[in-house]
Amino acid sequence: MAGRELTSLRSPRVKAARRLAKRAFRRRERRFLAEGPQAVREALAIPGGLVELFTTAEAETRHPELIAAADQAGVPVLRVSGEVMAELAQTVTPQGLLAVCGFLDVPLGDALAASPKLVTVLAHVRDPGNAGTVLRTADAAGADSVVFTDASVDPYNGKCVRASAGSLFHLPVVMGPRFEGLAADLKSAGLTVLAADGAGDRTLDEAIDGGLLARPTAWVFGNEAWGLPEETLRHADEVIRVPIYGRAESLNLATAAAVCLYASARAQRA
Amino acid sequence: MAGRELTSLRSPRVKAARRLAKRAFRRRERRFLAEGPQAVREALAIPGGLVELFTTAEAETRHPELIAAADQAGVPVLRVSGEVMAELAQTVTPQGLLAVCGFLDVPLGDALAASPKLVTVLAHVRDPGNAGTVLRTADAAGADSVVFTDASVDPYNGKCVRASAGSLFHLPVVMGPRFEGLAADLKSAGLTVLAADGAGDRTLDEAIDGGLLARPTAWVFGNEAWGLPEETLRHADEVIRVPIYGRAESLNLATAAAVCLYASARAQRA
Repeated sequence: MAGRELTSLRSPRVKAARRLAKRAFRRRERRFLAEGPQAVREALAIPGGLVELFTTAEAETRHPELIAAADQAGVPVLRVSGEVMAELAQTVTPQGLLAVCGFLDVPLGDALAASPKLVTVLAHVRDPGNAGTVLRTADAAGADSVVFTDASVDPYNGKCVRASAGSLFHLPVVMGPRFEGLAADLKSAGLTVLAADGAGDRTLDEAIDGGLLARPTAWVFGNEAWGLPEETLRHADEVIRVPIYGRAESLNLATAAAVCLYASARAQRA
Repeated sequence: MAGRELTSLRSPRVKAARRLAKRAFRRRERRFLAEGPQAVREALAIPGGLVELFTTAEAETRHPELIAAADQAGVPVLRVSGEVMAELAQTVTPQGLLAVCGFLDVPLGDALAASPKLVTVLAHVRDPGNAGTVLRTADAAGADSVVFTDASVDPYNGKCVRASAGSLFHLPVVMGPRFEGLAADLKSAGLTVLAADGAGDRTLDEAIDGGLLARPTAWVFGNEAWGLPEETLRHADEVIRVPIYGRAESLNLATAAAVCLYASARAQRA
């Protein structure tokens, strides 16, 4: 059970958790923050996933089963005042539960050893909300893993964690490889590397009709504003564009990824 | 050309434009605000689209062709100080161009008279960013029109306008019908009404394989958090769910819409 309520932002445990809002501290501690009951449930389901749990008295009344499960797992539960929670949480309306979680990412070799059929690569994705939404979509589409290259946002960024809606905890995430080496590793693992870009030579429909999407595939998605750099495109097996039938100039990154990943899911299950 | 620079927020023209941040004033004046060079270009392309243009001296230097085009079209151009622009614009980094635009929505009858093959209906969509992203996706997928029911967000909301990335200007938008009557009107126009909902009886793949998506279709998308109400589902011809292959609980509204609309675009073009 939680002991007495911590009311000071200067409490060492609170200070240590607050620092995890910054990437450099997350990397050093290999820990990140995730808010809300769903995140606590997901973290509890992974051995070593939940490291520490901050709660408010009110949230303890609302979610006694989660507090009990954390206790049972030997996870320290720290009750804090509403003000301290508001400072710790990165949302406007904190839900009274803040999980300190251990990093979840796996080495690329582990992710590729499982003979994946559908891998999602975020290359140069800078917006954490977009990255989290793509992660959620990749999970929904049945992707085997998601790779964040060194030029992409940190998957443990608070906005990315929130936008992933729990999916960060669901499938293997790989962090930090450079794209050049990664493309070679993906190909060695038997994956066809498809870069999604508005400047692609073939449309997604042509790729479907040609049977290309039925193969084990790694989809590469680029930057929100300027797509993928020439250098990245050169390392892909094919550059595919989602067709634009109307007058829109482009698709939002996360929606383009959804169309591509679901096209693969369908083609691979046909 | 723009006359002397307006530096006061109390200038009547500035006050009138500022009020358009509120829905009630937009409705009364049948005008809305759109920021940036792309919006100005789009509004200029529509007769009566651009009503008034606020600029900064800096933006005039950067976009002389837009100022000239507005002048030529007889649109009043008002130069304002950076501070006034910052107050008028709803973004953190205003681009120095703010268009006062005339409402663009058309009556439902007009939209249906054109024998549409693909209509997008936003029923109960409350998040303006999501609504704008769906509008952009509908445009990209070649939808003939987008209908915002009375229970949805205002399409002229600043966040919706921005997220639509110009698409608000591209295809007919219908505003305000109640869903019950709307469903009947859509069916009368020969459209099959498909509601997208996680609780659907048939998957999207079954709908594709069964030939359902090749028909003229109106897709209905619901609320971000709780989907579509029972009452709305009852008025649809079919309730379709996007399959979840992994462990995600659901898809983000805009990504689910992208998958459905692109599936229709492909089926109708096969």
